[in-house]
Amino acid sequence: MNLILLFKEDFVGSSKRVRISGRRYEHIISIHRVSAGDELCVGLADGKIGTGKVTSLGDGFLEMDVILTKDPPTPLAATLVLALPRPIVLRRIILTAASMGVKKIFLIGSARVEKSYWQSPALKDPTIREQLILGLEQAKDTVMPQVMLRKLFKPFVEDELPSIIKSTLAITAHPESPEACPRAVAGPVTLAVGPEGGFVPYETDKLREAGFSLVNMGERILRVETAIPALLSRLF
Amino acid sequence: MNLILLFKEDFVGSSKRVRISGRRYEHIISIHRVSAGDELCVGLADGKIGTGKVTSLGDGFLEMDVILTKDPPTPLAATLVLALPRPIVLRRIILTAASMGVKKIFLIGSARVEKSYWQSPALKDPTIREQLILGLEQAKDTVMPQVMLRKLFKPFVEDELPSIIKSTLAITAHPESPEACPRAVAGPVTLAVGPEGGFVPYETDKLREAGFSLVNMGERILRVETAIPALLSRLF
Repeated sequence: MNLILLFKEDFVGSSKRVRISGRRYEHIISIHRVSAGDELCVGLADGKIGTGKVTSLGDGFLEMDVILTKDPPTPLAATLVLALPRPIVLRRIILTAASMGVKKIFLIGSARVEKSYWQSPALKDPTIREQLILGLEQAKDTVMPQVMLRKLFKPFVEDELPSIIKSTLAITAHPESPEACPRAVAGPVTLAVGPEGGFVPYETDKLREAGFSLVNMGERILRVETAIPALLSRLF
Repeated sequence: MNLILLFKEDFVGSSKRVRISGRRYEHIISIHRVSAGDELCVGLADGKIGTGKVTSLGDGFLEMDVILTKDPPTPLAATLVLALPRPIVLRRIILTAASMGVKKIFLIGSARVEKSYWQSPALKDPTIREQLILGLEQAKDTVMPQVMLRKLFKPFVEDELPSIIKSTLAITAHPESPEACPRAVAGPVTLAVGPEGGFVPYETDKLREAGFSLVNMGERILRVETAIPALLSRLF
């Protein structure tokens, strides 16, 4: 936790005093090992970043006076369209994408996505939110990303995707494409990433029809959780 | 498993017949669901890539006739010098680095590496080898990477590192560096990556003395397992 993410409901009494308990408190105590008077990097969800000075340590909570002065990092101009991964991998990917500054993630169905994944607790709002928060805390960011679920590939790609990719560079990674993934692009990007095993030909055809270019990241086939930071880092 | 990695000891009788059991057999049966006559992508460890045609399925094993014709992908010209991560993360990182084509990894001590990590079963030869194999199988590569352990930071950096970085671009990621990580470099790279929390100032000073430049990957602080694919993908 490189930044303690604060929420409106953490504020008590005055406009600058917060009271923290639960996971964040445990982390601050066990990892940062703070005493009264110590300062921590804090940020208000969807707001500014600053410092929190510990004013008191209670039994299971601590209080800080916070000063918020600095804007969070600029969001990555990337929309991620991701075939729903295995639940255990999904958690890490949500955290990774949030830590890299992605603010919009669509989790979509695909022929190679197992139907059972849609029932996973990893897809419940509080679980996704937790991973997003961990990602923001890691990256010292405050802007909460949005995660949207779209179980059906075809209606999503036909009806919704065209307006999502408007005025963006729309690409999808495909090991067999002869075109290399572009580097350091200037404008916004919509990046579609298939499941392990890749999008099936019908799906890459539909993505192409919708306006996507297929690009490769070299000869090697990467796992989704490796491909996402690799692609984002090359594109931005 | 996008490629079944074969070893000399898999060959039976003739020079082209292999017998596979254990993890690879289980995977081929449960995921690829092969029948006799099916062809799979195979590669010989440190050798060529080709196809294996299933000749027979036994009880707990299968046999294939293999033809090996194609060279493996070109290795990434990268040596990774990595502060030993937490054991659970180490496994994933070894797999990731192998899948991206890194062939030389030094795991080193650092002030922020917990001493107990050096006792972890994740550091045992067979465990590291297993992750390397999984990485190669993922990426359709055959060239086994080397992983070397160097528990003591100072003698490694003073005595060994200068010859390792010779004729390479030696860089280490540091969020506070004003210099951005270079893109698409032409020659070989030695990439040093600190522990969570980063190298301490003494260590970055020692790396600088040894010839390393400090570079940043943007404002955001990434987890080591995210930083490695992000750095490699930007550098190559």
